[in-house]
Amino acid sequence: MTSTVDAQTATTAGLDLGPARALSCRECGHQTPLAAEFACPECFGPLEVAYDFGAVTRESIEAGPRSIWRYRGLLPVPSDVQDHPNTDPGLTRLVKADRLAAALGVKSLWVKDDTGNPTHSFKDRVVAVALAAARQLGFTVLACPSTGNLANAVAAAAARAGWESVVLIPSSLEKAKILTSAVYDGALIAVDGNYDDVNRLATELAAEHEDWAFVNVNVRPYYAEGSKTLGYEVAEQLGWRLPDQVVVPIASGSQLTKVDKAFRELGELGLVEATPYRVFGAQATGCSPVSAAYKSGHDVVQPVKPDTIARSLAIGAPADGPYVLDAVRRTGGAIEDVTDAEVVEGIRLLARTEGIFAETAGGVTVATAKKLIEAGKIDPDAETVLLITGDGLKTLDAVQDHIGPRATIKPSAAAVNEVLGF
Amino acid sequence: MTSTVDAQTATTAGLDLGPARALSCRECGHQTPLAAEFACPECFGPLEVAYDFGAVTRESIEAGPRSIWRYRGLLPVPSDVQDHPNTDPGLTRLVKADRLAAALGVKSLWVKDDTGNPTHSFKDRVVAVALAAARQLGFTVLACPSTGNLANAVAAAAARAGWESVVLIPSSLEKAKILTSAVYDGALIAVDGNYDDVNRLATELAAEHEDWAFVNVNVRPYYAEGSKTLGYEVAEQLGWRLPDQVVVPIASGSQLTKVDKAFRELGELGLVEATPYRVFGAQATGCSPVSAAYKSGHDVVQPVKPDTIARSLAIGAPADGPYVLDAVRRTGGAIEDVTDAEVVEGIRLLARTEGIFAETAGGVTVATAKKLIEAGKIDPDAETVLLITGDGLKTLDAVQDHIGPRATIKPSAAAVNEVLGF
Ligand SMILES: Cc1ncc(COP(=O)(O)O)c(C=O)c1O
Ligand SMILES: Cc1ncc(COP(=O)(O)O)c(C=O)c1O
Ligand SMILES: [Zn+2]
Ligand SMILES: [Zn+2]
Repeated sequence: MTSTVDAQTATTAGLDLGPARALSCRECGHQTPLAAEFACPECFGPLEVAYDFGAVTRESIEAGPRSIWRYRGLLPVPSDVQDHPNTDPGLTRLVKADRLAAALGVKSLWVKDDTGNPTHSFKDRVVAVALAAARQLGFTVLACPSTGNLANAVAAAAARAGWESVVLIPSSLEKAKILTSAVYDGALIAVDGNYDDVNRLATELAAEHEDWAFVNVNVRPYYAEGSKTLGYEVAEQLGWRLPDQVVVPIASGSQLTKVDKAFRELGELGLVEATPYRVFGAQATGCSPVSAAYKSGHDVVQPVKPDTIARSLAIGAPADGPYVLDAVRRTGGAIEDVTDAEVVEGIRLLARTEGIFAETAGGVTVATAKKLIEAGKIDPDAETVLLITGDGLKTLDAVQDHIGPRATIKPSAAAVNEVLGF
Repeated sequence: MTSTVDAQTATTAGLDLGPARALSCRECGHQTPLAAEFACPECFGPLEVAYDFGAVTRESIEAGPRSIWRYRGLLPVPSDVQDHPNTDPGLTRLVKADRLAAALGVKSLWVKDDTGNPTHSFKDRVVAVALAAARQLGFTVLACPSTGNLANAVAAAAARAGWESVVLIPSSLEKAKILTSAVYDGALIAVDGNYDDVNRLATELAAEHEDWAFVNVNVRPYYAEGSKTLGYEVAEQLGWRLPDQVVVPIASGSQLTKVDKAFRELGELGLVEATPYRVFGAQATGCSPVSAAYKSGHDVVQPVKPDTIARSLAIGAPADGPYVLDAVRRTGGAIEDVTDAEVVEGIRLLARTEGIFAETAGGVTVATAKKLIEAGKIDPDAETVLLITGDGLKTLDAVQDHIGPRATIKPSAAAVNEVLGF
């Protein structure tokens, strides 16, 4: 990859990625210098950021900005990261969900509502970290292959930063998702092909254009660290402690492994007591390769061809599948999957009990939690956090045949009273 | 109105509306006890909340919750308001908009991005205050007539609180707006008629059902106070000072008058230095009765029949029109209006410079600011804040014919390079 040379020059020239010290292979442990690399030079295993954390205290975090940058001392970003224009995502609501808890028959339940992010999904977190790292690594164009949320987040973050963006999407994407990315006026390119074709094309282009940072390809190790902030925020918002149980949706599986990593780091750093926690994974049955591997006791994940309304989770060959299985098994959690009908019911249940309108991925999380509670796998007496990572406004098509007005009436009070039984 | 009796009972029974002390007529100054009233018993003028503020300091505010409830000492809500389930809106981003500033030729520009609220518009603020007051006033059902944002906010807030809701909408509303309110599963009723018909129906029903709080009808004085929090937040986020200039969209005109009220209160309470500020109003030309009155030097506002893509601002007979004229003239601001084409360009300009996707109301604000700058009415050397109060995802139809992918290509790197000129 041509970009390697540049990145290594940058390292010598005093690359500032905060507490990040090296890239470390998840498979063989081999360490390489911080650079725009994503595969181990020894074994082709995925690289992950390794750190030398300095003194990070609850007080230093609490005194920080009201965004993910309060955790900058735990991320591969420079200490002045918030001074560069970016979307400042994070610090979204952690909602005590008593009505949903009652409906599900559990004692203590929280919903992390990530629809409050700038483009209304958790992708703003990972993209903000990717942008900050990419700037340090010498890139000047922000890029991605995507089917929706990531496209929105990349196009918006690039616009805000004044960067060029190149966003590749399958041409079959729903019109609404095309519009919400096109409005930022970067180079949005529709590709005749499915997401796998688009993804392959991105890898090819990343090798050709040394100044293009494909957030989820050539700067993926940095990008992925952004999901840790979901874990940090949950712990801080609970009053600096870990929840007993957390339910996380799985596409590539990155988010789940990073929430686990965040909880471990907080314990190791003494920012929270290292109490035991269990991580649960949620998939749609129409794309449930990790759930299938979990249930059959396998360590490897067999790719599938996705067919589900939960399109943002529809990755048939999840890169982090094996690490998800590790984290879930190590913590004593479980993985479950739910049908599209259950996804819709999950969306509706969350909306009518807590007033939160999630996208299909959120429906997957709620419905999976319900199933795990019913099966006795989630302990109803222990505390549980559900990660709601995307917004219902982006997947209206999933619910449109199921909901609508109670009635359509003439403009008279008598008609209203009749509908409502007065 | 039957509900008066109840509310007055409540007053004697120790109604807790925080620092609120009475309702005061904006026309004749007559004061009446706190109750579910909205019109002066003497002159039928609109009633407004009057306060006896206690000791509110910057420190007490900063130590409060990360929501509008940090300002509870300045709102008609009880001091334990945040302990009741509600959507906890507010404390949205104030974005330093240097790229938009450059595009508009001004020195210092900020965007208050209220799309980060729970249902993605500023209506969550006013509804949260209305719900808190309604609970104190003895109501048990949350209701409204609406064409969109308010319907979303009321349905969501009621769901979260476990209240019944009755939401009346014109049956001609766009499907997307119907779905985003229906999902919360309250009583959403489509009415064959226009918004004025729906509004009249609401007033009739409010008189009949003493336990229904129509947020923008019979509890309007409390509801309206919620918009003050936009002003408080801007001042706090600027580091406890007032901006020189603020641009506010106008529908009923309530928000503009309350932002002005908030700035005045902060100065009077010594929370900021009472520096001069100028308030500017923004309308769509297709519904610009307040702008028309301003330009022709009138004190009264002639109702119009709205015809604009900025539907959330399409109130032809704005209740607070005269008070908007007062505030704008008193502070030395101005009111301007923009065409639908300018609204679309305003949305696109904000998106491509700052990565913020606003609804049509936001397009009105940006385009009006541009026009006022070009006309020399907004001082380019003074600091300006634009209020972006709603989300682009709710008005996709407004932009859909104007934006799209740069190109649709075969999945090959060569094709991408060709599109981008490499
Ligand atoms: C809304 C939403 N939630 C969750 C995920 C899962 O992310 P991951 O690939 O990290 O498993 C995605 C991925 O696109 C998503 O869009
Ligand atoms: C997005 C948005 N902005 C601004 C307004 C203006 O509100 P007001 O009626 O207080 O003038 C509205 C009103 O519905 C709105 O929906
Ligand atoms: Zn290796
Ligand atoms: Zn009066």
